[in-house]
Amino acid sequence: MEKIIAKIKEERPLVHHITNNVTVNDSANITLYWGGLPVMAYAKEEVAEMVEAASALVLNIGTLTADSVEAMLIAGKEANKLGIPIIFDPVGVGATTFRTEVALKILRELDIAVIKGNQGEISILAGQQGEVKGVEAVGEYKNIAETAQKLAKGQKAVVVVSGVKDIISDGDKVYQVSNGNNLMGQVVGTGCMLGSTLGVFCGVSSNYLEATLSAVTAYGIAGEKASKKATQPASYKVAFLDSISELSDEDLAREQQVEQVM
Amino acid sequence: MEKIIAKIKEERPLVHHITNNVTVNDSANITLYWGGLPVMAYAKEEVAEMVEAASALVLNIGTLTADSVEAMLIAGKEANKLGIPIIFDPVGVGATTFRTEVALKILRELDIAVIKGNQGEISILAGQQGEVKGVEAVGEYKNIAETAQKLAKGQKAVVVVSGVKDIISDGDKVYQVSNGNNLMGQVVGTGCMLGSTLGVFCGVSSNYLEATLSAVTAYGIAGEKASKKATQPASYKVAFLDSISELSDEDLAREQQVEQVM
Amino acid sequence: MEKIIAKIKEERPLVHHITNNVTVNDSANITLYWGGLPVMAYAKEEVAEMVEAASALVLNIGTLTADSVEAMLIAGKEANKLGIPIIFDPVGVGATTFRTEVALKILRELDIAVIKGNQGEISILAGQQGEVKGVEAVGEYKNIAETAQKLAKGQKAVVVVSGVKDIISDGDKVYQVSNGNNLMGQVVGTGCMLGSTLGVFCGVSSNYLEATLSAVTAYGIAGEKASKKATQPASYKVAFLDSISELSDEDLAREQQVEQVM
Repeated sequence: MEKIIAKIKEERPLVHHITNNVTVNDSANITLYWGGLPVMAYAKEEVAEMVEAASALVLNIGTLTADSVEAMLIAGKEANKLGIPIIFDPVGVGATTFRTEVALKILRELDIAVIKGNQGEISILAGQQGEVKGVEAVGEYKNIAETAQKLAKGQKAVVVVSGVKDIISDGDKVYQVSNGNNLMGQVVGTGCMLGSTLGVFCGVSSNYLEATLSAVTAYGIAGEKASKKATQPASYKVAFLDSISELSDEDLAREQQVEQVM
Repeated sequence: MEKIIAKIKEERPLVHHITNNVTVNDSANITLYWGGLPVMAYAKEEVAEMVEAASALVLNIGTLTADSVEAMLIAGKEANKLGIPIIFDPVGVGATTFRTEVALKILRELDIAVIKGNQGEISILAGQQGEVKGVEAVGEYKNIAETAQKLAKGQKAVVVVSGVKDIISDGDKVYQVSNGNNLMGQVVGTGCMLGSTLGVFCGVSSNYLEATLSAVTAYGIAGEKASKKATQPASYKVAFLDSISELSDEDLAREQQVEQVM
Repeated sequence: MEKIIAKIKEERPLVHHITNNVTVNDSANITLYWGGLPVMAYAKEEVAEMVEAASALVLNIGTLTADSVEAMLIAGKEANKLGIPIIFDPVGVGATTFRTEVALKILRELDIAVIKGNQGEISILAGQQGEVKGVEAVGEYKNIAETAQKLAKGQKAVVVVSGVKDIISDGDKVYQVSNGNNLMGQVVGTGCMLGSTLGVFCGVSSNYLEATLSAVTAYGIAGEKASKKATQPASYKVAFLDSISELSDEDLAREQQVEQVM
């Protein structure tokens, strides 16, 4: 976890995304602003070859189609074969049967390094009750730490539950990250960009729990810094992306608010 | 129409979009900035189920494909069955035979609540002469108020003709909205974002004429406010989106310039 | 080349794009900010008819699929028949066999006016050694002027190699443009937006070499101006797009740094 931001800027990990068409530009930009190299490639004819050069693969089902799911599985199997970490963002799982079936298929057929979702999405994947309206979690989730831990243990993955306070578990320990700013929830794409951020950080470290803790914390700190520059959503988004590009390991060490809760 | 903006922020209507890939991020953001919840879902396997949870459905043919048109018809029929209002944006109709045929098929097979287009697009749908170059109206349209009224009457829909002055008709009365700023025409996506805005406003009101008048007026006022903050297009777009997020019912009541013209 | 920017604003060339879904919004906006009219249309049912009204066609394989390649070939053949210039951006060629085969097929079946790529992409198309990681050139390219000249000669096209210094050749002469700013490489989409810019400029001139020299130079000057307004990437992108909209022929004449190198 030491000097991971500097390591990213030095190693420039290539992060292959198969993602939705709503926030794809944001995902590409944030990858570049951290110091990584984004590549978006979806054609089934090329995804296996493209992922070979990558340091991480981000799969995001925000605007899934039968074709993109096929490409995700092809790329994912190749990534697994080569030991390249897969970040999975099950956007909107639970909103439709199709999304839920696809998400469960991905978990069944691929070995995922990090699963990131909101409280509703993670609860549904963990087999608990959860409600997702469109792509937003609705309802209350009282035992989210246990839910995250259960999913992480079952999937042998690191699980991130994004929210006002983020929960992270490797199936054993559970951590809570308190960094962040509520303006982050008022801009489209902050969930997806966290997925890309996880790809960048896991692309330079083989300890996915540590890389995830650093990624989530650094992301939240950038959100805090941006809130000092802008308070309205569109301006805030620009300020947030600028903050990503200038965040340092020193900021991360100084500002992090991480505690183990289980 | 009373306090409709406050109602949006309270009810948080889910607006399901099947839209183009050029302005999809703008559409999602403006939906969220008004206080609604955007969801973009295109797979034919899920659109009927996704629209069930929605308060409005926005169909935009800006970058149509055979697959997306199929999804539009599936989602639209389900929306009709459930009484969920459909906003239809016939982007570029008249530019190609394919677009014209698709647009006419959508009007034939679906019951549309609000049709929004530029002068060329609306004229073509009304069976009048119109010229569309790419996705822009060219030429002069002298009797646009009558044209809008005719289309609205024939389709039993509210019709919005966007332009320097916007025309709105329910097939009986015709209104003109003078709010807005010419910088709005110098940014890609302001047409599409008006479609999303119509989805948000019609998602909290069963009086689609009143909701449309409020939506078009509020949108124009936000454009005016933004012009005091920025005068170049990319900065203006950020300012415009910021203005959306802070617009109030008081602004709407105070600044609206609506007159009945027929 | 005289007063080409004024000519664009007067003629408003329609630029038909078949491009990737990462930077499509940026491409549309920059086309509009120069004074052109963007249209993005991909359906094989309509691309031949859409391109008929266009002044230029931009083909960009950044997120190619079998369907989009089919549409590119249909539109391209129609453009060739009508004498409409095609700008080809072989994004990521060399990264996968599929991209390389598609790019070579496009060069074989279509008559391209301008080919634009980074050093790796152009080297690979020229049959030289080149390395592309994702969509970025890696490695060193010592004889890039000769490589560009060779490709231009073989394809009877103007070739642009984008980089810190841009290289332009028509197969005979070779020019170097020193305008630009290194922040341009730190934002996603500046390569694709240069492709759109070439479409706009070649859409109002039949001398593609001169139009290309003007386009690349004007683009670089806008990048320089923006660097005086912002130094972080997301803010810089907004400033850069604003600079495009206000750039004049006088700026171009005064600030251009072009030299013939071969």
